[in-house]
This record gives sequence, C-alpha cells and structure tokens, in this order.
Amino acid sequence: MQNNFSIYNSLTRRKEKFEPLNPPFVGMYVCGPTVYSDAHLGHARPAIVFDLLYRYLLHLGYRVRYVRNITDVGHLQDEEADEGEDKIIRQAKKEKLEPMEVVQKYMNTYHRNMSQLNTLPPSIEPRATGHIIEQQEFIKKLLQSGFAYEANGSVYFDVVKYSEKYNYGKLSGRVLDELLQESRELEGREDKRSPFDFALWKKADPGHLMKWPSQWSEGYPGWHLECSTMSIKYLGEVFDIHGGGMDLMFPHHECEIAQSTAALGRESVRYWIHNNMITINGQKMARSLGNFITLDEVFSGSHPLLEQPYSPMTVRFFILQAHYRSTLDFSNEALKGAEKGLERLMKAAITLDRLKPSTDSTVNVDEIKTKCYEALDDDLNSPVLLAQLFEAVRLINSAREGTEKMTASDIAKMKELFSVFVKDILGLIDESAGRGNEKIVSGLMKLILDIRHEARQKKDFATSDKIREELSRLGITVRDLKDGAEWEFE
Amino acid sequence: MQNNFSIYNSLTRRKEKFEPLNPPFVGMYVCGPTVYSDAHLGHARPAIVFDLLYRYLLHLGYRVRYVRNITDVGHLQDEEADEGEDKIIRQAKKEKLEPMEVVQKYMNTYHRNMSQLNTLPPSIEPRATGHIIEQQEFIKKLLQSGFAYEANGSVYFDVVKYSEKYNYGKLSGRVLDELLQESRELEGREDKRSPFDFALWKKADPGHLMKWPSQWSEGYPGWHLECSTMSIKYLGEVFDIHGGGMDLMFPHHECEIAQSTAALGRESVRYWIHNNMITINGQKMARSLGNFITLDEVFSGSHPLLEQPYSPMTVRFFILQAHYRSTLDFSNEALKGAEKGLERLMKAAITLDRLKPSTDSTVNVDEIKTKCYEALDDDLNSPVLLAQLFEAVRLINSAREGTEKMTASDIAKMKELFSVFVKDILGLIDESAGRGNEKIVSGLMKLILDIRHEARQKKDFATSDKIREELSRLGITVRDLKDGAEWEFE
Repeated sequence: MQNNFSIYNSLTRRKEKFEPLNPPFVGMYVCGPTVYSDAHLGHARPAIVFDLLYRYLLHLGYRVRYVRNITDVGHLQDEEADEGEDKIIRQAKKEKLEPMEVVQKYMNTYHRNMSQLNTLPPSIEPRATGHIIEQQEFIKKLLQSGFAYEANGSVYFDVVKYSEKYNYGKLSGRVLDELLQESRELEGREDKRSPFDFALWKKADPGHLMKWPSQWSEGYPGWHLECSTMSIKYLGEVFDIHGGGMDLMFPHHECEIAQSTAALGRESVRYWIHNNMITINGQKMARSLGNFITLDEVFSGSHPLLEQPYSPMTVRFFILQAHYRSTLDFSNEALKGAEKGLERLMKAAITLDRLKPSTDSTVNVDEIKTKCYEALDDDLNSPVLLAQLFEAVRLINSAREGTEKMTASDIAKMKELFSVFVKDILGLIDESAGRGNEKIVSGLMKLILDIRHEARQKKDFATSDKIREELSRLGITVRDLKDGAEWEFE
Repeated sequence: MQNNFSIYNSLTRRKEKFEPLNPPFVGMYVCGPTVYSDAHLGHARPAIVFDLLYRYLLHLGYRVRYVRNITDVGHLQDEEADEGEDKIIRQAKKEKLEPMEVVQKYMNTYHRNMSQLNTLPPSIEPRATGHIIEQQEFIKKLLQSGFAYEANGSVYFDVVKYSEKYNYGKLSGRVLDELLQESRELEGREDKRSPFDFALWKKADPGHLMKWPSQWSEGYPGWHLECSTMSIKYLGEVFDIHGGGMDLMFPHHECEIAQSTAALGRESVRYWIHNNMITINGQKMARSLGNFITLDEVFSGSHPLLEQPYSPMTVRFFILQAHYRSTLDFSNEALKGAEKGLERLMKAAITLDRLKPSTDSTVNVDEIKTKCYEALDDDLNSPVLLAQLFEAVRLINSAREGTEKMTASDIAKMKELFSVFVKDILGLIDESAGRGNEKIVSGLMKLILDIRHEARQKKDFATSDKIREELSRLGITVRDLKDGAEWEFE
C-alpha cells in the first residue's frame, strides 16, 4: 500500500515515514481513561487526536485494529511513587457505591461524551479487570526472565537490573542514575529494592475492595502492567502504533517499554505517538488548581470559567485547530473563535450546495486537494489542513459573489473535498441541522398563523387558502378556535 | 419502606408481595445478550420489561443495584446439549475478525439500540471474560462440595448427584428421570457421566481462540457459570430478583440454581421473574425460519416483513401494551396500532399543556392515579396501566371539546400523572419533537418567503416588514437575490 504519510515518533525524536509491519493491517493501541470521574477536556484531546489518526489511516485504505483500554483497577493516587489508594476504590467510598458501579457510571459518561465529539469507537476496548489472568501470566514471564522479584506477596519490576541490560529512560529521556539521586527515601516502601521499581502485583490489605487470588497473594495488578498485557494480547508481540498523552511518557510508557522488552527480549512498539496537553488561560489544568472543566460542563456552559456553552463540534474544531504536538490553551476567546470558524466552514458547505455553475473556471480544486493531503502527510498537520479548507471557503464565497467562477465539475470536486476532509477525516459535522428547531418551528408557525389571521380579516382568502394548503402538505393541521388558532402535526 | 407491589415468582408459581431482603436496597440480576450478532426484537422485550421493573422500583423509592451481564465467551451453538462451537468464535471466523472485535462491535450496537429504546443503563454490566478467575474459584467450591467432577481437563456439574440432595427441575418443572429417559445417547460426549451434566470448564482444543490457563487445562468457562458467579459477586449470596426470558428457564436458569445451591447450600434468588416470548405473525421467531428482525431493521423498515419503519418508541409502546407474561405477536397491524396509540397519548400531553382551566370540575384525577398504581402493583400490569392512561386521554380531549371540565388543580394533577407514569415509569418520550424538523423548517421558510414576495409585489410593506422582523427575532437572516431570496441562521 502506497502512502506518503510521515509521523513524529517520540522514541526516535524525528518524523518517520509510516510503514506498517503487515500492510494493509495496522495495529494501534491508545491509553484510555481511568474511569473514576466525569470525562474532561484532558480526555477530549487524545480521543480526538487519535480519532483523526484512525480516520486518516482508514481513509488511506488500511485495515486498522484500534485498541483503547479502560483502566478500572490499580491506578493509584500517587502515580510517580506508585503508592496511595486506588482511585476507583476511593471514589466508590465517597459515593457509597460498589467499585464496579463507579466504573460503569463514568465509563457510560465517557462513551456518551466521546460519541458527542463524533469520535469513532475503537475496535476493542479491553478493561484491566477483564485481563487479570493475562496479567498474572505476564508477571510469571517477568519473574522467569529475572527482571521481577517477589517481596511479601507483592511482585516488583527490577528497574536497576533492567537498566543493566536495556536502556531505561529511552522514551522520556530520563537518566536512571540522576533519578535515583533526586529520589526520596524509601519510607514505608521497604519491599522495593529501589525507589523506581514499580509494582506488577500488589498484595491487598485486609478489607481491600477489588482483589483476586494469585500464587503470590490476594491482590491486584500494578497500573502499568495492563497496557503491556492487553496491547500484546490483541495486537501481537510487535505492533505499529502506541499513542497517549505526553503526561503518560513517564513513568507509564517508560514502564510499559521496560515490561514488554524484559518479557519479550525486544521492543513491542514501532511508533510512539504523543499528544501535547491542554492548558487553561495559560495555566496547567489540574483538579487542585480548580480550573478543571468536564466535557458536560463545557457543552452546557455550567463552569464559572465559561462565558457560554460550547458545542461538541466547537470543541472538536478547537482541538483540531492546533497541531497535536503543540500545547493548546483553552480560553473563552479561543473557543469563540473556534465556534465562528466552524460556522464559516459549515456555511460554505451549504453555499456550495446552492452554487450555480459557470461555464468557465478561475479556481484549481485539485491543487487545494493536493495541499490537504500534504498537510496530513506531514505529521498529521490539522491546522495547515484547516487553512487549506478555509482557502476553499474563500473561493466558494467569492464564487457566490461572482468574483470567482466555478464550473459544475469544480463544484462536484469541491463537494468531494468537503466530504472527504471535513466530514470523513476531520470528523466535523453540521450541528445546526437540529439546533433549536422546536423553538424555530413554533416561532415560524406563530408568524404564519398571524399572517393568516390578518389575511382573513382583510378577506384575502387567496393568501389564507395558500397557507392552509402548504401547511397541510407539510403535515400540519390548523384548527380555528374562538380566540385564535392552534396547530398540530397530523 | 411501604409498598403494595406484588409480582409473579416463577419459582413458586404465584404472585407474591415484593419484600426485599434489605430495604431500601434491592439487588436485581437480569440475563443480558450474547454479543455475536445485531440486537433483535427478542432482545428488546426483556430489556424493556426489566427496565419497567427497574423504573418502578426506583419510583417506589428503592435503591436498586441492577446488574445485567454481557456474555462474551462460552455460549455454544447447541445450548441444550451444551455442545458445538462458541457462537462468538464462529462469528469471528465468518467476519475475519478477532473474537473481541466481534464482541465490541455487537456490544456497541446493543448499547445504541437500548439507548434508542430509552432503557436506563444497568448499574453494572459485567462480562464473562472479565470474571474468569471468579468462575474458576466457583468451580473449586463445587469440586470441594462434591457436586462437580473433573474429566480429561474439563469439569462438569454432577446433576444426578445434585438431584439426590436437591430438587433439580424445580424452576422449569422438568423431572430428571423423565429427561434422562428421553435423552439421546452420549455420543462423543463420553467425558460426561450423564447427558444432563453440564460443563463448568471446558478444555480447549488446540487452536481454539479465547482460552485461559487453569489448574484443569487451558480452557474456557461453561455458559451457565458466569451468571451464578457474577450475580453473587455483585449482589451477595442471597439477592432479591433474577430476571430473564422464559426461554432461559431451562437449562440456563435451572443450572444456575443448581450451581448456586450446590456451592452455598441454599438458594440465591428470592424472586425469579420471566418475560414471555415474541412471535411474528403467530410463528416462533427464529433465525432458521427467516422471520428474525433486527432492531435496526425495525427502526428503518428495511426487512421484507415490514410494511414501514417503526420508531423505537413505537416498539417500546407495543411491548408495554402486552403483559410481560403473555406472548406478544409482532405484525404490521399491531405495530401500526401501537404507533397510533402512542401518538394519541403524546398529543393528549400537548393538549393538556394548552387546556384552559374551568372553575369547577367533572373529573377525578386521584381515582385514575390510584388505578394506575393498582395496575403496576398487580404484577406490573402495563396494559391495564395504559388503559387507565387512555381514560385520562379521553377526559383531556373531552375537556378541550368542553364536554368535561377540569380545574387548574385537575390540570396540574393530570400533568403530574403523565410525567410520573408515561415518562418516568413507562419511559415513553415524545419523538415528534425533533422529527423531520429540518424539512419542516425549510418548508415553512419557503411558504413565508413566498408570502413576503407577494406582499412586496402588492406593496404591502407592513406584512413584508413584519416578516423580516419576526424572522430576525428567531435568528434567521433573509438575503434578497436577483431571482428570489435565500435565508440562513445567523
């Protein structure tokens, strides 16, 4: 399969031509959410970025198996130190629910939000609790290969030993010796030989919710293990793409590389792809800073930092307006700008539908199309793609004004361009179609019945009859009452 | 918690007052789909029946934990003989997909359809593959208690031994001795001691997809085991309600009772509730008979047996029109009848909103309300409830005609009645709100611009100005062109 698609590989730190291992098949694994709270803007960006990649690969003709996990156990409060309470169990206690009820509740919200953002569902959405045996088998392999050790019913990955043979830190650029010098003492974590060792299996305290029997203890898997286990289970020992947010590079993805390499003797992932973060008004978005906005809040405008609601497509457009490797600052101005841009794009599509063809042409649609592909082929450059599409918008609007000319063939090509790049690849759809229609219909009907009333008073029966006939054709019945008229759908 | 709710218990074969074990908590487990093909009418009925039960229990003030499983492994082609190929693996081979891709695909369709039918999502939706360890632990208990035996790497439940101590067949009314006399020889199933023994763990053939290590063999769990395991895990050893279709009574639910009783020494389920089946034109609905209609086909009208599309709410109304323990025959006439009935109910709600109050009253809303509760309290009698609601519809329509009178207080009570029984409990919502509105808006706009054009030709500027102003108030801009006018939302 021919393509000119290049993408930035975080592991080699350069753009590389994309060549899958077994074309036309592509295997892609993306880190999904830990489902213990409402989905927020930080979830929207990777979901949309990797949806764009998925859609583009599908468009290029690849058969993509897209795996995105659901973390429903083992993600602890203190990620870096690999300590603290399980995030889901903590939330379950807070909401007085069974942990699996918490998982189901926030997984449902996540799915609803992702569907609102028009992201395509992954081919497989495996859950950590659904792969406990597979994770235990993975641990056994690591124990056999000597890169893991058991201590008091828990099993840890031996980072020091691993780094003697392999390069721990190659993805994130961290250097283990420096890390070790900076690190805190091993207070209360005396089971670990080194502070950067991480848990593969944790022995559960008595009363711990969510635990499973194992040969080591009743316990639960470490957070990093599920991704190595499930990606290899569903995509094979070596697969094409692993994606996720930049914040996951260390320790999560670094630990994944260590686990897979230690178990298999070679690396699993061919292209590591990372999206950059979202900031709010220039500040890092964090629960602790109180500038954390959920997607439902964005869509309804119900957060104090928001001046108005922003629709799912506005958020999608906003995210696509930035290159995925740049930071993206969330502000009301930027969102309002995205709203206007999206509207302009959608209106141009309608104008295009109504455009009357000329006999000769002043535009070159093929050139724009080529540039659109070049933008995506250059590391998925969606802002450059959008700039090209706005050049098309300018030409369409000029053609309407008569300052540019488009033939029937130009118009057909332009429609194809919009269909492929706007709808199929960028995944932007027209939200105004259904917007406030109920209110609009009732407003228009009030106006029409007013005109009909006046016409009848003026004995202009031609007009009042015409109104009745046209309404009946639309399936609307008018019933005259003493003090006015009411209407209903037949 | 006080209630007068009675429900038919399939186990005792009589209506019983509903008294949960630990009020206000209620635990309810319902058998969900095996996700290897598109959801069909046979899935809609249990989903809607148990949604009605869930909604009524919530309305009565109970805190319900509603668990509905997803079967994604171990359901074999020949259910009765407990033999044949795994349904999901078979479909995976057919579609050239990984089994988990098949699971994800049809699970997504099922969720979409269930949401279209306005069923509330369960509190927990556990999957069989997500509970392999738990199922293995359950098997160990059965082996310890002596009601299971291992044979060549598989483990079977010993039905004959169980029936010496307990009553195998108590739910379905089958008698083991008779079953054994009627049964076929044990050809090719020589691992089983008796033909009615069923697999708890099956040793996988080489090359079998979807298998897990165990102390007995690399294999997979039997179909019946997941429900015993997951219901007890999430609802406790004894819980209130177990629901499912009547076709699951034997062997599935009978085997569940045997498993749980053998493991715990007592029964788990307090109320067994079963919905009856859907037939098509009087005939059993079956793949082999070619009268099998998927929900997407019903909603789009794309099956040869369908004369038109039927909306999700029409299907919901149709199912609620029958008592859940009666068979329900799917025919075009019946569906069209349901469509009309639903429309009449929804129109009455609109009429109610527009009704002008009288100073005195000829109706007794409280009496209708009491009868509505009586209907639901009597074994969830939704057809009787609907008959009561149509009595309310008749009164509302008469009030509009002036032949009945309703005070402001009557109207308020009637609105409350509709909100509680139609929307909250029956889960019926008005689909016409968004229906074809785009077409309606464009039709109404064409009419208005025509009238405006005529008014301007007649120099009736009062009318044409009024139109422009009102449209502008609705956010619609009109742009005059040489050959007519076009409009757009601002």
